[in-house]
Amino acid sequence: MNQETAKQLARELMNDSKFAMVGSNGEEGFPHIKSMIKIETEGLRKVWFSTNTSSKRVAQFRANPKASVYFTDQVKWTGLMLVGHMEVLDDPEIKERFWSDGCEIYYPLGVTDPDYSILCFTADWGNYYASLVNTTFEV
Amino acid sequence: MNQETAKQLARELMNDSKFAMVGSNGEEGFPHIKSMIKIETEGLRKVWFSTNTSSKRVAQFRANPKASVYFTDQVKWTGLMLVGHMEVLDDPEIKERFWSDGCEIYYPLGVTDPDYSILCFTADWGNYYASLVNTTFEV
Repeated sequence: MNQETAKQLARELMNDSKFAMVGSNGEEGFPHIKSMIKIETEGLRKVWFSTNTSSKRVAQFRANPKASVYFTDQVKWTGLMLVGHMEVLDDPEIKERFWSDGCEIYYPLGVTDPDYSILCFTADWGNYYASLVNTTFEV
Repeated sequence: MNQETAKQLARELMNDSKFAMVGSNGEEGFPHIKSMIKIETEGLRKVWFSTNTSSKRVAQFRANPKASVYFTDQVKWTGLMLVGHMEVLDDPEIKERFWSDGCEIYYPLGVTDPDYSILCFTADWGNYYASLVNTTFEV
């Protein structure tokens, strides 16, 4: 598969996905994984999530921003791994921009809740898998 | 949630899952993720996968066996992360034991295909997530 086709199919897989698997470097050198709701994306380059400031992932990404984000369609047997860096953002304007109804379940104090943070992932490269073929590309 | 309840629900989530997300340490310290078919499990302790011997994951686990395996139910919003070590096995008896019809798609030379290997994951601990609550336990 050529890279442009892979990138187009990768964008479609991202757009069709409500969740992403987020990879981080956990304690003692073990890779960790967590399913998180994808709030917003910008092409293949950016993915935003919200999280509790007190969560393990925030501590892990502050210690080591190296990250991956994985999308999969278990019916079509396709997968997309994006590899890059995760930033922890607590700027009030950013928090306002990504706030939506229902967020109170996770952040009871509302948009200014100090336990509400935004994670911004930026991809450097990706790998799209479909029909037994891996296609790697720069983002 | 108490640990015994979490472990029981974790076992049910594993049993109900066809796929697992496998976390590895990729090049340059980045965590990698790949969706793989779960062949077999033994309690919460062991998970077996098959893979191409020539694959990136085999090279990564030979270099660094630290691994995680993640199961999620995106309808119930539950997740299970198991953290431990991955072994790459190419013993003929093991390969025979886990061979099944259809494997030829991945390993055209059959059960003795040198490009067919088994990955055996052994968990040390786990974290089960449900209803906003994380429960961590030893395995």
